Amino acid sequence: MTEPFDILLVEDNPDDVELTLETLRSNHISNRVEVARDGADAIAMLFDPGGLADRGRSALPRLILLDLKLPKVGGLEVLERLRADARTRTIPVVVLTSSREDPDVAASYRLGANSYIVKPVEFDRFIVTIRELGFYWLIVNEPPDGRRH
Amino acid sequence: MTEPFDILLVEDNPDDVELTLETLRSNHISNRVEVARDGADAIAMLFDPGGLADRGRSALPRLILLDLKLPKVGGLEVLERLRADARTRTIPVVVLTSSREDPDVAASYRLGANSYIVKPVEFDRFIVTIRELGFYWLIVNEPPDGRRH
Repeated sequence: MTEPFDILLVEDNPDDVELTLETLRSNHISNRVEVARDGADAIAMLFDPGGLADRGRSALPRLILLDLKLPKVGGLEVLERLRADARTRTIPVVVLTSSREDPDVAASYRLGANSYIVKPVEFDRFIVTIRELGFYWLIVNEPPDGRRH
Repeated sequence: MTEPFDILLVEDNPDDVELTLETLRSNHISNRVEVARDGADAIAMLFDPGGLADRGRSALPRLILLDLKLPKVGGLEVLERLRADARTRTIPVVVLTSSREDPDVAASYRLGANSYIVKPVEFDRFIVTIRELGFYWLIVNEPPDGRRH
């Protein structure tokens, strides 16, 4: 991982990872996506000495897609770490989860998630949702650090 | 204003107001948009005694579109007020402005804007952008208060 990338996808479900990567690639939104398979992996990639945060803004992703129900360290704890560190505080974080439970939604916004999306169960709707969120956050939205598409 | 509405648009430019309302309506995204013509008007609508915040969550908008360069009270000050009040803290706020200057972008994210969009100058791109943001925030995104489309 020496090239800058667009998206850090924190997701443990291999089917969701594959479908997300394929949708972003085939719609020409991004093929520069890194994957963390659990919350501990995400935190290590970002905050270990010599990790992404140490390498400056251009090494950090422009968008983080964060599942909540993750092995080892949950998504809300990852979100708290991201918002507690000045280097990652304003990176757009979209929670992308199968939970539609109000406490998860409320906690995500309270801890500083920019957006919350419930993964559609149905295949075609999943693809449309990923395409929309990729387009919105990588092309329509202006990132906090001036790095444009 | 007795019916619940979807969007509070805080915008002083009448052409931008008209085009935004027309785009949201004609694309069947929302025809329930209220307009505040300056920052003081927005704060009064929200926080005056008997105003929207006093009337509970269902009276509050699901999305706030906030220009920055506003008469009387600027958009960043409106944003600070929204984020300082528990009743409005998690309402999604999209800054929608002609400024692409880094200090405005940085301050908006730091003060808790969910997203930052530079208004396209070109007519067709303006319409596409409004359509995308309306679709994303009112249909794809899960709101913090459980009020769904």
